Amino acid sequence: MNTHIARRLGFAALFAVASGGVMATAPVVNTTVTEAEVIAAQQAWGEALVRISQDHEQGGLKKAKATAAAIIDAAYAYQMGPVLFKPTLTQAPQTFRLTREGALAYFVGDDARFPQDTGFALKGWRKVDIQNAGIHIHGDVATTMGKVTLTDRQGQQTTVDKTWQFKKDDAGKLRIVLHHSSLPYAPK
Amino acid sequence: MNTHIARRLGFAALFAVASGGVMATAPVVNTTVTEAEVIAAQQAWGEALVRISQDHEQGGLKKAKATAAAIIDAAYAYQMGPVLFKPTLTQAPQTFRLTREGALAYFVGDDARFPQDTGFALKGWRKVDIQNAGIHIHGDVATTMGKVTLTDRQGQQTTVDKTWQFKKDDAGKLRIVLHHSSLPYAPK
Amino acid sequence: MNTHIARRLGFAALFAVASGGVMATAPVVNTTVTEAEVIAAQQAWGEALVRISQDHEQGGLKKAKATAAAIIDAAYAYQMGPVLFKPTLTQAPQTFRLTREGALAYFVGDDARFPQDTGFALKGWRKVDIQNAGIHIHGDVATTMGKVTLTDRQGQQTTVDKTWQFKKDDAGKLRIVLHHSSLPYAPK
Amino acid sequence: MNTHIARRLGFAALFAVASGGVMATAPVVNTTVTEAEVIAAQQAWGEALVRISQDHEQGGLKKAKATAAAIIDAAYAYQMGPVLFKPTLTQAPQTFRLTREGALAYFVGDDARFPQDTGFALKGWRKVDIQNAGIHIHGDVATTMGKVTLTDRQGQQTTVDKTWQFKKDDAGKLRIVLHHSSLPYAPK
Repeated sequence: MNTHIARRLGFAALFAVASGGVMATAPVVNTTVTEAEVIAAQQAWGEALVRISQDHEQGGLKKAKATAAAIIDAAYAYQMGPVLFKPTLTQAPQTFRLTREGALAYFVGDDARFPQDTGFALKGWRKVDIQNAGIHIHGDVATTMGKVTLTDRQGQQTTVDKTWQFKKDDAGKLRIVLHHSSLPYAPK
Repeated sequence: MNTHIARRLGFAALFAVASGGVMATAPVVNTTVTEAEVIAAQQAWGEALVRISQDHEQGGLKKAKATAAAIIDAAYAYQMGPVLFKPTLTQAPQTFRLTREGALAYFVGDDARFPQDTGFALKGWRKVDIQNAGIHIHGDVATTMGKVTLTDRQGQQTTVDKTWQFKKDDAGKLRIVLHHSSLPYAPK
Repeated sequence: MNTHIARRLGFAALFAVASGGVMATAPVVNTTVTEAEVIAAQQAWGEALVRISQDHEQGGLKKAKATAAAIIDAAYAYQMGPVLFKPTLTQAPQTFRLTREGALAYFVGDDARFPQDTGFALKGWRKVDIQNAGIHIHGDVATTMGKVTLTDRQGQQTTVDKTWQFKKDDAGKLRIVLHHSSLPYAPK
Repeated sequence: MNTHIARRLGFAALFAVASGGVMATAPVVNTTVTEAEVIAAQQAWGEALVRISQDHEQGGLKKAKATAAAIIDAAYAYQMGPVLFKPTLTQAPQTFRLTREGALAYFVGDDARFPQDTGFALKGWRKVDIQNAGIHIHGDVATTMGKVTLTDRQGQQTTVDKTWQFKKDDAGKLRIVLHHSSLPYAPK
């Protein structure tokens, strides 16, 4: 039985009254997303970015690429089909990375099919802070919008405007189905 | 702003850590159904049935019919379209009551278009006990299945097998979109 | 990429106009249920019931049980958790069959844990006709309510009132998450 | 009965066969989003932007503001709660426009509470072309990501990377619940 199924005990006690009421506790199957799951998935994304940078410094590109591939397979939903991914630093004609290979090339570069990619996750990231402006939860999908600040090992910070959409899969795990990241508008 | 939107304060405190994390509390829009909302909607259905019986005894058929009409408009989703309603005691060719008038006739009778209906809600009900076997929550809809025991003013009890599906509307209120009630199987 | 993902070609042609419009065809990921999928799933349920009866007659209980087990695993959602299943002929205290073994016992009997079960699918069924009163589709779940008429090899017919809820899984397949079946009400 | 409920006729003919099948046509309630509805909502957004510009030129700021207010009320979901809106040209601390007034200020300016806003919709837009990279439909919400090219009356073009999320309301109308627009990344 998968992880998002919980038996709720003692619940009916709130309701069983002399005039009737709901008496039984019952198994509950709930496929909806919770706010806590959304926050945890965002947290995991930040930790994953830092891990790729650290693996790169400690184990080189080969290790970083293996880590990035594993993270993409665990955190994104490419197994469900095209993911709507607009990374921070991509340009036409390769702005959108609907495929797993396009996402991997963005994070670690080293792919001749994506010549503009230098490896966003290889930039020595140490810390990711996420400040949500708002969260929408609609059934098994949730969207967030906010500011994400990345700090590198020199203490340099980069802040981006970021939208994520997560979908809960049959195993109860949130996966990124949409990710739009952009540098803040700066008037000339 | 409607009732199922809540500002969640202090949440980020769980996550803000030196290594980065989610720092902001954010407004949350959540259109999913909760177990507590399902239990409350079931409870309200039972109380409504008792109310119709009491209004009938105290105010006659006219009052009972007015109460039943108000309850159907508040608790069922006929304003969204056909409701999948199979009441306990209906027969072909009027087994299913997809329209508001079909539901009203079932509860209070007195409708020449539904000659078999004698008014299920007029049977002197005093108490409704609901024992859920299980609850499924999928986004803005939830289904329940279980036993419902009705007690009348003589203390006579009737138990039925009941399935309900509730849908949360734009105002955040659960409405019955499906209701299948049946007497338990009794072998000859 | 799973089966419910389709590239839609030539779509934009409908919209591309001199004053602007939507120009691109785009890959579409759609996790919602269609009416055709619901009808096909109902059809498959009826064919499966007939198959169990025929396998029983041709291959005995062992074959019937193997077929029933395979059908339950393919058509129901016990792998997601408890299924809300109220079969036509079950009684308290085993009215609801939330587990796979409870469903299997109902269809083919031969399980000491379910002494009342004689094997509903072993009754020589030849034909299943489904007459929907209505269908509700809400995202990745759909509910149906209607009359189902079963015809056995002697031409005897049994009609039941039936509610099904189907959920589309990650592979794009509909699975039964709720099934309430009951004999029509017959006044004494 | 609202617009997204359709009676489907003749459907069962596909399925009614000698060996049984689904025989009845039935009313269908469907709350899911279709691709055609998404494309039409995008189209309407583009036409609305052009209309505000034209009303500004023909009727001045007062008329433009009235048109923009009407469009926001019809096309966005501020009546449901905070909309996740990151317009193309906004900056901290007013990057995100979760309120109706924040959206109106962005489109037509003239609001002292949003001093950076000059009125994005007042820039003489004549044509909006939308090129979707992909569309995701999950129940009553749909997300799109792609390029949107705006052409002004001098023929000058501006292309942005845009994500929209639409939600179908109880009346069957799509409303924007999330909108993230950003200028393409341009390396220094």
